[in-house]
Amino acid sequence: MAKIEPKILKGFRDFLPVKEIERKRIISILEQKFESFGFVPIDTPVLEYTEVLLGKGGGETDKQVYRFNDNGGRDVSMRFDLTVPFARYMAKNRSDLHLPFKRYHINKVWRGENTQRGRYREFMQCDFDIVGIDSPSADFEILMMMRDSMTALKVSDVTVHFSHRGIFNRLLGKLDIAKNSVEILRIVDKLAKIGEDEVIRLLAELTTEDNAREIVEFIKPAGSSLETLEKMETAAGGADEDSERLRTVFGYIKENEMEDFFKLDPSITRGLDYYTGIVYETFLNELPGIGSVCSGGRYNNLANLYTKEELPGVGASIGLDRLIAALEELGRSSDKKSFTDLLILAMDEKLFGHYHKLSSVFRKAGINCEVYHMKKKINAQFKFAEAKSIPYALVCGEEEFDKGVVNLKDLTERENWNDLTLEEAIGKVKALISK
Amino acid sequence: MAKIEPKILKGFRDFLPVKEIERKRIISILEQKFESFGFVPIDTPVLEYTEVLLGKGGGETDKQVYRFNDNGGRDVSMRFDLTVPFARYMAKNRSDLHLPFKRYHINKVWRGENTQRGRYREFMQCDFDIVGIDSPSADFEILMMMRDSMTALKVSDVTVHFSHRGIFNRLLGKLDIAKNSVEILRIVDKLAKIGEDEVIRLLAELTTEDNAREIVEFIKPAGSSLETLEKMETAAGGADEDSERLRTVFGYIKENEMEDFFKLDPSITRGLDYYTGIVYETFLNELPGIGSVCSGGRYNNLANLYTKEELPGVGASIGLDRLIAALEELGRSSDKKSFTDLLILAMDEKLFGHYHKLSSVFRKAGINCEVYHMKKKINAQFKFAEAKSIPYALVCGEEEFDKGVVNLKDLTERENWNDLTLEEAIGKVKALISK
Repeated sequence: MAKIEPKILKGFRDFLPVKEIERKRIISILEQKFESFGFVPIDTPVLEYTEVLLGKGGGETDKQVYRFNDNGGRDVSMRFDLTVPFARYMAKNRSDLHLPFKRYHINKVWRGENTQRGRYREFMQCDFDIVGIDSPSADFEILMMMRDSMTALKVSDVTVHFSHRGIFNRLLGKLDIAKNSVEILRIVDKLAKIGEDEVIRLLAELTTEDNAREIVEFIKPAGSSLETLEKMETAAGGADEDSERLRTVFGYIKENEMEDFFKLDPSITRGLDYYTGIVYETFLNELPGIGSVCSGGRYNNLANLYTKEELPGVGASIGLDRLIAALEELGRSSDKKSFTDLLILAMDEKLFGHYHKLSSVFRKAGINCEVYHMKKKINAQFKFAEAKSIPYALVCGEEEFDKGVVNLKDLTERENWNDLTLEEAIGKVKALISK
Repeated sequence: MAKIEPKILKGFRDFLPVKEIERKRIISILEQKFESFGFVPIDTPVLEYTEVLLGKGGGETDKQVYRFNDNGGRDVSMRFDLTVPFARYMAKNRSDLHLPFKRYHINKVWRGENTQRGRYREFMQCDFDIVGIDSPSADFEILMMMRDSMTALKVSDVTVHFSHRGIFNRLLGKLDIAKNSVEILRIVDKLAKIGEDEVIRLLAELTTEDNAREIVEFIKPAGSSLETLEKMETAAGGADEDSERLRTVFGYIKENEMEDFFKLDPSITRGLDYYTGIVYETFLNELPGIGSVCSGGRYNNLANLYTKEELPGVGASIGLDRLIAALEELGRSSDKKSFTDLLILAMDEKLFGHYHKLSSVFRKAGINCEVYHMKKKINAQFKFAEAKSIPYALVCGEEEFDKGVVNLKDLTERENWNDLTLEEAIGKVKALISK
């Protein structure tokens, strides 16, 4: 029979064990961190009604969506982010949820993007939000959790750049160009990429050159975060609720001795137009070129597509694929190949039942243990151990079985311990793996 | 603006925190168990080329597949199980994998099934396989891991029914009806549902009534597993490699004192025609009606659609949704609502920075802790704690702050400990939660 080529779609990936173990390790660290802050996990369907995901409009994202008619003729789409399904989820399950609601969601999303820029069509998102409360304490908790999550992943040399969309909007109002805010935000967002002159040129196409210069002046940080805040306030026409919010959050940052991690940076505006309050982006100082690894902000109305109830919230999203790539580049990934501590070598065909009995005893003692499943040349068995990075092996042939003992081998150091009782062997392996 | 109804597709589910926490708890227990046996995780894409998933034929499953043309005009499908993608994965990544390869894969699959029978269109599968080796030790390891997985989930009152497809096939050969084996297997598989008489009637449509009676006689267990084995051997025409394999595996079962969990049951044939060796199904003795919660067997050629290399293997699949439902019915589910141990109450607007500082100290001590994010009436804050089942609260108003102390509340027992230093409070909470 002609064989089918086992190919996969462009932009999609198989995860070999080393990569999947590492991805799961990172996700598990993040989950524990989120849970320690009171966040709980949720899940939503991968497929939803297209109308629910895309609303009635047709934006830029829509073209990238995997959309089709199912066998029942329903117009359905695969989720392209975790925010829209979360908004739908809040509206649908509102009566079962107590506010403020703190959830995290780590799962795959799909976008038929151009893969040439190193992007994937199937990738992981990691979102966390506090919904149903509008307070500086909630804004700050997201910031703190972003910092702590990065530290837990051993990338503590990060800077979280933050600002406030309300103050920026007030400046635009003062300049009488609030109606162009979406375009202006999109241009300002490109500052790092295209440079100041080009930003001024593009802005001047929308407004006067004076206004363009004032906007560019506004988005430049001053010396310290507090000086920057004063400069922003002045430019926007004096203190108000929004600048007070920033001042309060910055006070919490100082009180928690976290100033080293945070920088008030008015150039951070986040292109997405649903943000209304504080906004943030996180950069790895060791790899600034890769862009923000964790971004988010405050919005005043999460689910207005689906419900009249106003659900203000604040949250952020970790770019998991980017972060995993960064950890690898920084040499801070684990390259664990398996979880096995001990391989029981197949020495004698008659002893397999005994080998499994031994494996059970080791596992009960907390030692991950597997039996080599066939009596093959010892070198083949060592190669298996090497392929899985198994550090220790247990040898029990007919002679050892008759004497009621086992031999232990350190496969890396090539050290041997012979004629151990089972208890001695367990103690030895435990001591070795806890080192 | 008119609102969009936040509805979800039939057969798809939102997971509220309690359900998602429980699902993750169960998955985590299984993962740890699998890893302790040397299994490693992999992942594959949700979308694949339709030809890769469905081959060139068009079977019963095909109609249930979510299949469409993507924006690039490719004929793609969402995976409907984890076996076919695994076969494709083995063929594609063969040079990066060392045999025997032991993998597990726990993830969602999609089938447009009739939802009336309580089935979902989006559900979880949990597969584990040992590929690249054909030995009784590998057959036995899968059995042992099935038993241990159930025990880890506190459903130890299970019986794994096992048999061997080869012996059944030999009987069919002897009766000269091997060419009808697929239909015969499908009928025999229904024994528990439709009863012996109906099975004989249906079989007699395919062969003689004598043969039908001989088949039904064959699939009845004798007294003990060994007696059953002898009866099977005789019926099939004497001992051979296949019956010896069963005898060896049963020897391992005895040597590992696991006879109570295993029953040789010749009626187990598994309808799927790719099984060639040992086959198994697992029933909860407390809930026999729900059917098998873990089934599998040995196949001699996993990836023959994609490669000439023969990849024999043995594996099983846990029906995760069914198992979770069973645990719930047996009252053995956790109804954990959050992971938070301690809520820091919002007593004073000026102290939020301090509250976050305290929360950090508690978290560093291993106590999951969150701050209530707004100064509201104390009853609203208690309701929040109740909704998340948070057992303890910390009170620090202006007075306590000035004295450098905190008060602790047991929210369930309504006990209070006042004027504690921070160290005392940490010690107290740790002692309480470790109880």
